[in-house]
Amino acid sequence: MDNTFGTIYRTTTFGESHSKGVGAIVDGCLPNIEINESLIQKQLDRRKPGLNKFTTPRNENDSAIILSGIQNGKTLGTPIAVVVMNNDFRAQDYAEFSNTPRPSHADFTYKEKFGIVASSGGGRASARETIGRVISGTIAEQVLKTFGIEIVAFVSQIGEICAKNIDENTISREIVDSSAVKCPSKKYSDLMEKEIEKTIAEKNSIGAVVSCVCKNVPTGLGNPVFDKIDALLAQAMLSIPAAKGFEIGSGFSSSKTKGSQNNDIFIMKNGVLKTATNNSGGVQGGITNGENIVFNTAFKPTATIGLAQKTANYDGNSVVLEGKGRHDPCVAIRAVPVVESMAAIVILDCLLRQKMVNNL
Amino acid sequence: MDNTFGTIYRTTTFGESHSKGVGAIVDGCLPNIEINESLIQKQLDRRKPGLNKFTTPRNENDSAIILSGIQNGKTLGTPIAVVVMNNDFRAQDYAEFSNTPRPSHADFTYKEKFGIVASSGGGRASARETIGRVISGTIAEQVLKTFGIEIVAFVSQIGEICAKNIDENTISREIVDSSAVKCPSKKYSDLMEKEIEKTIAEKNSIGAVVSCVCKNVPTGLGNPVFDKIDALLAQAMLSIPAAKGFEIGSGFSSSKTKGSQNNDIFIMKNGVLKTATNNSGGVQGGITNGENIVFNTAFKPTATIGLAQKTANYDGNSVVLEGKGRHDPCVAIRAVPVVESMAAIVILDCLLRQKMVNNL
Amino acid sequence: MDNTFGTIYRTTTFGESHSKGVGAIVDGCLPNIEINESLIQKQLDRRKPGLNKFTTPRNENDSAIILSGIQNGKTLGTPIAVVVMNNDFRAQDYAEFSNTPRPSHADFTYKEKFGIVASSGGGRASARETIGRVISGTIAEQVLKTFGIEIVAFVSQIGEICAKNIDENTISREIVDSSAVKCPSKKYSDLMEKEIEKTIAEKNSIGAVVSCVCKNVPTGLGNPVFDKIDALLAQAMLSIPAAKGFEIGSGFSSSKTKGSQNNDIFIMKNGVLKTATNNSGGVQGGITNGENIVFNTAFKPTATIGLAQKTANYDGNSVVLEGKGRHDPCVAIRAVPVVESMAAIVILDCLLRQKMVNNL
Amino acid sequence: MDNTFGTIYRTTTFGESHSKGVGAIVDGCLPNIEINESLIQKQLDRRKPGLNKFTTPRNENDSAIILSGIQNGKTLGTPIAVVVMNNDFRAQDYAEFSNTPRPSHADFTYKEKFGIVASSGGGRASARETIGRVISGTIAEQVLKTFGIEIVAFVSQIGEICAKNIDENTISREIVDSSAVKCPSKKYSDLMEKEIEKTIAEKNSIGAVVSCVCKNVPTGLGNPVFDKIDALLAQAMLSIPAAKGFEIGSGFSSSKTKGSQNNDIFIMKNGVLKTATNNSGGVQGGITNGENIVFNTAFKPTATIGLAQKTANYDGNSVVLEGKGRHDPCVAIRAVPVVESMAAIVILDCLLRQKMVNNL
Repeated sequence: MDNTFGTIYRTTTFGESHSKGVGAIVDGCLPNIEINESLIQKQLDRRKPGLNKFTTPRNENDSAIILSGIQNGKTLGTPIAVVVMNNDFRAQDYAEFSNTPRPSHADFTYKEKFGIVASSGGGRASARETIGRVISGTIAEQVLKTFGIEIVAFVSQIGEICAKNIDENTISREIVDSSAVKCPSKKYSDLMEKEIEKTIAEKNSIGAVVSCVCKNVPTGLGNPVFDKIDALLAQAMLSIPAAKGFEIGSGFSSSKTKGSQNNDIFIMKNGVLKTATNNSGGVQGGITNGENIVFNTAFKPTATIGLAQKTANYDGNSVVLEGKGRHDPCVAIRAVPVVESMAAIVILDCLLRQKMVNNL
Repeated sequence: MDNTFGTIYRTTTFGESHSKGVGAIVDGCLPNIEINESLIQKQLDRRKPGLNKFTTPRNENDSAIILSGIQNGKTLGTPIAVVVMNNDFRAQDYAEFSNTPRPSHADFTYKEKFGIVASSGGGRASARETIGRVISGTIAEQVLKTFGIEIVAFVSQIGEICAKNIDENTISREIVDSSAVKCPSKKYSDLMEKEIEKTIAEKNSIGAVVSCVCKNVPTGLGNPVFDKIDALLAQAMLSIPAAKGFEIGSGFSSSKTKGSQNNDIFIMKNGVLKTATNNSGGVQGGITNGENIVFNTAFKPTATIGLAQKTANYDGNSVVLEGKGRHDPCVAIRAVPVVESMAAIVILDCLLRQKMVNNL
Repeated sequence: MDNTFGTIYRTTTFGESHSKGVGAIVDGCLPNIEINESLIQKQLDRRKPGLNKFTTPRNENDSAIILSGIQNGKTLGTPIAVVVMNNDFRAQDYAEFSNTPRPSHADFTYKEKFGIVASSGGGRASARETIGRVISGTIAEQVLKTFGIEIVAFVSQIGEICAKNIDENTISREIVDSSAVKCPSKKYSDLMEKEIEKTIAEKNSIGAVVSCVCKNVPTGLGNPVFDKIDALLAQAMLSIPAAKGFEIGSGFSSSKTKGSQNNDIFIMKNGVLKTATNNSGGVQGGITNGENIVFNTAFKPTATIGLAQKTANYDGNSVVLEGKGRHDPCVAIRAVPVVESMAAIVILDCLLRQKMVNNL
Repeated sequence: MDNTFGTIYRTTTFGESHSKGVGAIVDGCLPNIEINESLIQKQLDRRKPGLNKFTTPRNENDSAIILSGIQNGKTLGTPIAVVVMNNDFRAQDYAEFSNTPRPSHADFTYKEKFGIVASSGGGRASARETIGRVISGTIAEQVLKTFGIEIVAFVSQIGEICAKNIDENTISREIVDSSAVKCPSKKYSDLMEKEIEKTIAEKNSIGAVVSCVCKNVPTGLGNPVFDKIDALLAQAMLSIPAAKGFEIGSGFSSSKTKGSQNNDIFIMKNGVLKTATNNSGGVQGGITNGENIVFNTAFKPTATIGLAQKTANYDGNSVVLEGKGRHDPCVAIRAVPVVESMAAIVILDCLLRQKMVNNL
């Protein structure tokens, strides 16, 4: 139901861009799990604006307050409520949008849906909503770590520059964070930086692809029909602001291949049945097969740009809009921890469901 | 919860490939809606195998029996249960698979998940599961028709052949059905037919992309956060067997563009705010903007092929598998009505939720 | 969502009193559980009309057909769909009700809700809807049996006759079934039989209370807040047609006591913490404490009676209604297996949820 | 799912008795509804301890902070998050319970369920959890008021003293609040006060019944099968701490009557079909019939008492427990606004579901 995601491990986010606070309630977490609060803060900092010249300089000093559900560093099995207070009220910056829906933003559709819109900023469509997801995802990751599961996302493409030969088995968040654009290949990272610098100079924005690898995932996670783990990942990723596409394993490129090329042949490795290739992206029939889960999410260019856009206001009059200040030239960069968080939430939900069957 | 999809308009499917029956329960349908049962049968026939030389010749004479919820051709507002009895028990054909998981099939992962598998065929992973979806989707379509909404899906790519210049405003199911490969462009349909003939001759299979257009969708459908209408469509499409990717509007190609290219500028048409382009695919911030909803789903090549595949059995021994009989060379063709059905289910669910707010 | 009950073990029932069939889909059952189909039929027979002179003689030859989810007597972990075809179409008997809502029936409220009503009988409000519950409950019982849990319900009161000194530890379904009114005390059973004979002679009906005992329930089942196991049982019981009240343990009588009387003091028995009394009915803070779960459900007298009732039709005109044929003089008798089934469904759902936490 | 209640109007509560805060997220509220925040505070004050000598003197200065979802006094249609910070940390008072589960409290069962318990107080089983319910319920009431619906609960019985001849049509919260024990009859209120004074002098506690009347409820609310409005009310009421029983309309007493006595005959009043009596409590077949909804909830005596109780600790050793300080001698008094809140939540949820069908 919209603001809640998950069946067993359930995340409910709340908060508008300029309400008193934003955050999440996490329900269904296992009890007795050690939670390191500083890891929540660390991941929140990775999605924070103003990290470097490639992200919006908006000052969001996001500090998470745990209201319930964790005591002495351990989960109680009760709802974990976490809030981040909003400090950066700049309602006036948005005044001009009140009668002009921003192109490819949610202003127009929110008004059509609710008949009322938050007076400033994107309301629930703001990227600040993702704070709640990162809170929940980082808690999920700490549960998953007790099962050995690890998740790393990175920018694999910006505009026409597509990073190649990334070794999914050796990448880590440290390597990813060593790049200002979150691309683990030094060569492509440099090219991407230049592309973004050019985009910033043009007062424009640019699209990108975020890839994600989930390692050490047990077999048997996911469900046969509507809640295939890749279907849940698809929903999770498309629910991130600015996401426009999702693919698992060989994805769209599989549509250009023959079965004899795309099929993943089984082989025995150390007494365990594995696949020789991983075009399935770790998922067969919606259920994990023990290989890495690998997927891509496409992000469109940030809708807010500094370039003048000639559009229409609600009265139908022609209006020229120019985004003030600096904005994220490439939203995908800050989306990296959000992708990781949503992946963690999906995988934990599937793992807990499976725990009923085989006492994982 | 896996076998159930939807929040208000809820579809639960049941049935293994070789159980006594397969079907669906549809809950949450509006009362007093006229249902033409022959339309259900018609759409079931479109997904049926054996339609022409480009689909599997397996004889599935699927006849839908309405057990409840419809009386004198009208919905009662109560659960609509529909069953199709399974006649085509060919358990013996599958005997050889019992110790060898088929590559890129769900045999291995079902066994890992449940510790037990249906003795023959794909169980729930069988394409027969989609019968329940088509039943529910065709009922949903008849409700949507009372709101003027119309949905058409078609094959837009097979292998490397990508149909261009399809006019989304004039295509219809009749035009789509005039092509043996469900491609509304005569020119590309012919090329695709040749490609499939070649694939059949090779005892191979081939991937494809199904595109879908939903017309006359009101503004305001979909939800701001996790249940964005495009996120729900993504889940719905990835839940279809063999689907590997989803994109809305400009999708993956938007990741290669700049904001100034991808943004959809507003214009006033006949007193209504519309967009000059539709890179958003009819959805902004997860909510419909009144333009056509347009999306693509990528399908991998059918996993079962006649070509010999050298794989491993559960004991780790090397085994050569050759699919017997003829199989769908391109599963996407029969997936066309399934895509339409899942789209109808998602849109109706969002419409009913929105009906609470603005009495649509 | 109304026609579906449960979070993990989910029961969806379908069917009107005079549709082609009634039944249930059971989703979320553990795989690899042996199911004895004859036990489903046996429990269906216990709720069947016409068992003896104290129940309606309507001939319902209910035979369950398993459509999916069970193979070779074992659950597959997939949806179990079961249908009972309706044979007893007596639409004409109900013709006179078309313009006159029956007092204390659901005719009037269904019409107000849906604007359309099934043309005959009670539609979904018919007792035939409970067939689906018994199917699901009997499957649940077979899963619970693998955990040692046993459930027995019985009639403890009819009209003013209240059975006393029933030993909850020794009663069994065999003892209950030895009474024509399902009361395990021979003395009270005889008194109740006489009371019902009198009621039948008066062409009237009579209310009753069904008690239920659930034995060998593990500790820890149920949830702290809204899904307390007693809250779920309350919903489950009040959802049975004609149920008007629910109480757990000392229930309404606890409202007349002092804390020092009602509190259940802890004692150690064989190294396990138990309570000296069981006013809690096996549930503290919504969670099972290892004692027997004990609860009562109050049933009103059957609404349909042979006695003339002066009421109004939809036009507001005065009408005299007399129920034709014989009806259940006391619906509670046939409700006994339904109470057991709903209890089994609730307990299994709570048990599966708890299985995630402690690998029960 | 436990900490969340409702299908459309969804309430999720969070917070332990001694965590940083307690509160609720309300999702699914209609947009554009005017919310008077002071009414939330007013109802919170009615459930607050320390109101008078008949409630616990614990100082809970509960002040609600709205974090999101309401702007300029109007709902946005987005999640409404509200928090009340916990100020009254008295962890030391509970130290002695760490090794001794309090009789008829949830200490033992929480430990069995989660393997970990909040270090002090009742955790989620604390009455403080009901703060979130009152927040949500008071918002729901303000939505219901726009439909003319009004809800009043009151204490109708304490111990053996049962108030008679309460006129449900004239009672109001003002009249209820004029009684220190929330009983609208001066005569019985005086008797109840004396009973409680005696109970306090004994260092004991006493049970009670809370009755509730919901007026001007439209016809058609509630659902035919598992989500009958009385079934949902039963779940809602049994989920309140210390509740042990629920009955709708003539409830348990209907089990002692004949059909001819209990049936509600239809009559025409001012062109509208009404019932001459209201033994149905406003609900037929689970759906409202336009009469007042009338129900009772039984509360056991407060488990914590000052009287010495000889019980066992986790080691099985005999321990004498004496509750320190003063406690609520009769929890039902403070439960009155909680009953109203849960009723409002249930009715609004049913109303929003029905709004899809008939644009209420």
